[in-house]
Amino acid sequence: MDSFREASAADETLDPPDWTEVGALTHRIVDDAITYLKDVRERPAWREMPADVRSFFSAPLPRSPAPVAEVYDDVARNLMPYPMGNIHPRFWSWYMGSSNFTGALGDFLAAIQGSNLGGGNHAASLMDSQVVNWMKEMVGFPASASGTLVSGGSMANIIGLTVARNVKAGVDVRERGVGAMPKPLRYYASDQVHSCHRKAVEALGLGNRALRRIPTDAGLRIDIAALKAAIAEDRETGFMPACVIGTAGTVNTGAVDDLQALASVAAEEDLWFHVDGCIGALIAIAPENRSLVAGIEQADSIALDPHKWLHAPFEAGCALVRDASQHRNTFAVTPEYLKSTPRGLASGEWLHDYGLQTSRGFRALKIWMALREHGVEKFGRLIDQNIAQARHLTRLIGAEPALELMAPTTINIVSFRHRLDGASEEKLKAFNTEIMLRLQEEGIAALSDTTVQGRHCLRVAIANHRTRRDDLDLLVAEMLRLGREIAATATLM
Amino acid sequence: MDSFREASAADETLDPPDWTEVGALTHRIVDDAITYLKDVRERPAWREMPADVRSFFSAPLPRSPAPVAEVYDDVARNLMPYPMGNIHPRFWSWYMGSSNFTGALGDFLAAIQGSNLGGGNHAASLMDSQVVNWMKEMVGFPASASGTLVSGGSMANIIGLTVARNVKAGVDVRERGVGAMPKPLRYYASDQVHSCHRKAVEALGLGNRALRRIPTDAGLRIDIAALKAAIAEDRETGFMPACVIGTAGTVNTGAVDDLQALASVAAEEDLWFHVDGCIGALIAIAPENRSLVAGIEQADSIALDPHKWLHAPFEAGCALVRDASQHRNTFAVTPEYLKSTPRGLASGEWLHDYGLQTSRGFRALKIWMALREHGVEKFGRLIDQNIAQARHLTRLIGAEPALELMAPTTINIVSFRHRLDGASEEKLKAFNTEIMLRLQEEGIAALSDTTVQGRHCLRVAIANHRTRRDDLDLLVAEMLRLGREIAATATLM
Ligand SMILES: Cc1ncc(COP(=O)(O)O)c(C=O)c1O
Ligand SMILES: Cc1ncc(COP(=O)(O)O)c(C=O)c1O
Repeated sequence: MDSFREASAADETLDPPDWTEVGALTHRIVDDAITYLKDVRERPAWREMPADVRSFFSAPLPRSPAPVAEVYDDVARNLMPYPMGNIHPRFWSWYMGSSNFTGALGDFLAAIQGSNLGGGNHAASLMDSQVVNWMKEMVGFPASASGTLVSGGSMANIIGLTVARNVKAGVDVRERGVGAMPKPLRYYASDQVHSCHRKAVEALGLGNRALRRIPTDAGLRIDIAALKAAIAEDRETGFMPACVIGTAGTVNTGAVDDLQALASVAAEEDLWFHVDGCIGALIAIAPENRSLVAGIEQADSIALDPHKWLHAPFEAGCALVRDASQHRNTFAVTPEYLKSTPRGLASGEWLHDYGLQTSRGFRALKIWMALREHGVEKFGRLIDQNIAQARHLTRLIGAEPALELMAPTTINIVSFRHRLDGASEEKLKAFNTEIMLRLQEEGIAALSDTTVQGRHCLRVAIANHRTRRDDLDLLVAEMLRLGREIAATATLM
Repeated sequence: MDSFREASAADETLDPPDWTEVGALTHRIVDDAITYLKDVRERPAWREMPADVRSFFSAPLPRSPAPVAEVYDDVARNLMPYPMGNIHPRFWSWYMGSSNFTGALGDFLAAIQGSNLGGGNHAASLMDSQVVNWMKEMVGFPASASGTLVSGGSMANIIGLTVARNVKAGVDVRERGVGAMPKPLRYYASDQVHSCHRKAVEALGLGNRALRRIPTDAGLRIDIAALKAAIAEDRETGFMPACVIGTAGTVNTGAVDDLQALASVAAEEDLWFHVDGCIGALIAIAPENRSLVAGIEQADSIALDPHKWLHAPFEAGCALVRDASQHRNTFAVTPEYLKSTPRGLASGEWLHDYGLQTSRGFRALKIWMALREHGVEKFGRLIDQNIAQARHLTRLIGAEPALELMAPTTINIVSFRHRLDGASEEKLKAFNTEIMLRLQEEGIAALSDTTVQGRHCLRVAIANHRTRRDDLDLLVAEMLRLGREIAATATLM
């Protein structure tokens, strides 16, 4: 009778006992959120967490309940004041978008509506496909192409590189594996390629060696002659050249490979042409700059990243594949002819047949709502605006003898450093790192650093809809002040 | 002067011109969301979309702006009424959780706060690690283990199986690829294994053949003797047995492999022991049933799925790996000694070193808030409650001559069918499918169907915090009614 007792116990639920109370709290949360974004400019770009905040996050698994208002107060006190900072107008570190309020509403509503985007016959599923179609429109892909929304650019690249592998393997690689391929495949990309491609070829069992890094020219674009030579060499030495990866916007300097030239090489050499457009694919919608990515529409597959220049809250990446059946044949575990039921919930498309996930979140809604609200033309103008801001900063650097541009500015990334008379490269690195850290610690701006052609530099990546031109004026002024202050402190140098 | 003109154009932003108006709209959205969940029981479990709703989702990319209130009205009219239905108390289809309001607040706040969980020194990063620690506590993993929150169970399994591959390859597989391995690896799982494992071994370049499906016993658990025989055979024929996958809760019938026996086999045979606990790992927190998953704490890696039995809104999966350095060595592209800066934003841990993503969303917050609000003990009781409900349904089926149980009920999944005197298996399938579709179309309940030991059956999977025992009473009554109605319609049979 034990199991009878279990079954007759009073049913519990996660729903609140009193929705009115939760409603009142949620109104407060919404008001706080609006104030949080409205005032973001008044807060520091970044700040260090005090010790009590750090230790707050080491509490063990909570056993017993707490009022949700108390839970929110803890979030408001310990979490909200110490974000990464990418929502701030002077966050230009690494590379990411700055989110947006409508997108946050999208994520809220997606969680309320609750749908699983693995597929099926329901509205979220149709919206997911619609957003993929919109992405195809943006980059000039044909309506017959396929695509899938994924966790980000890294996964979008994995999707493209996996289809490339399976199409070029020369064997049923799904069934038999990489070990059964007649020749080892080779992929090509510039030496500026993002690290996620290394992770991808490693995960796919091709090995890091399968990804040949091709030297770049003075503009940090892939050297086409060197690429051709590498392909020829590989053919001679028993490899199977399979895929060339063009980068539309490198993470280091924003260089854009010559996509038209790469499309020609791929056609001549019968390679898969994948474009990593996580940073730059969407320049295709920017009226002033779209010619920079001409040729992207000739790719076999494209990775792009709505959580970057569309400012979708994390996560939202997108993979597009020109030939939908090659895409589906790489991942599908549901036979094409099988709609598991003729009617009802299971009669829709199986969206999980286009990638590695089974359950899938409803990423489409946040993208859909923001695109409907602003229209794609405004997103195009915002991209042009960030590029114009990067050119503005580049001019400021050119006009300021204490600063030095370290790579050509192509799009929205500026690589530069503060000069220090007579200092070695090592000292320059320490000096500039200190400037970068003080800018963060004083809450002025978040920059990152990198190495370009062997030399350390600071890096401003403006994928930010809150940045204004005068934020960049302030950056230059503050860098000069910090440069003077740090240079004056002998011990640091 | 063209670029000067660009730079001096008035700066645009995605922020609304009038936050007050957006605040008022958001209050309305929140009130609607609360009503939506409060009244979910009054709405149909599923309904077909009318033609105008379908065609609404074929609109092309929007060029120009629309007031956000209008955008929301479109969402309210066309999207919200037609969800997959997993938030409904009588949704028992496939396998997924039913989301929760606090989790939706978590997703909203995560998007407002905006942080990228690729890593770094900020509060979200600490909370992400804290939630991973909580997951370790729940399944009895040591504090020294590592883990990562991922898009779902499929990706969590990929993480575990990739570490297994790299540890067992017998070669530097990251650098040289699967083709360089001395012997082809073999993975073992029961013939009930989830399809995501096939996708995983295919993606990893091992090939579908590398995953040997081992027969199951009458309880649909992996047959240990058959497993041992397969391993011995593979060793003799030149394969390298590498990994055994135990399933804690199969998707078909909820069978739980004997995890203790598998741990022993893995130890004796020197195999990696991975547990797919997407469905059942969290039974470890359920006081009445935790013994069912005894042995899970001996795994080398575990996949679990907070968007199932913790009811986190999509997406939230979690991979745990006993040996943190094996985990990190599989994915890290940042050398261990490198903290890119001694202070500041980049001085935190690089969380992207534990998986395939670079940018990562803030999945932790929704899990954290719900665990704080309810406490883990309540989640444990809710798991016991669903299992008790499944046993209740099993008893109802046993007591009703028109219904037939098709597999033993172990946890929260019940496989059964409606009988039809003298009907062939084919007719039984058509008859039961029709019952399933009518249940959906009349909005009564969402079930799915499957094949168990070659026979078609219906399937109720109760991972739902809104289900009450009387919902199952209703299901049985309605199935009997529909059975009579359909049987009376000669054309259908
Ligand atoms: C060129 C490039 N490719 C790929 C990625 C990876 O994208 P994600 O972080 O969305 O995974 C990035 C990230 O900055 C990138 O800059
Ligand atoms: C046993 C099992 N493993 C893995 C998965 C995949 O999980 P997800 O859908 O979260 O990717 C499922 C999904 O139902 C499952 O039941």
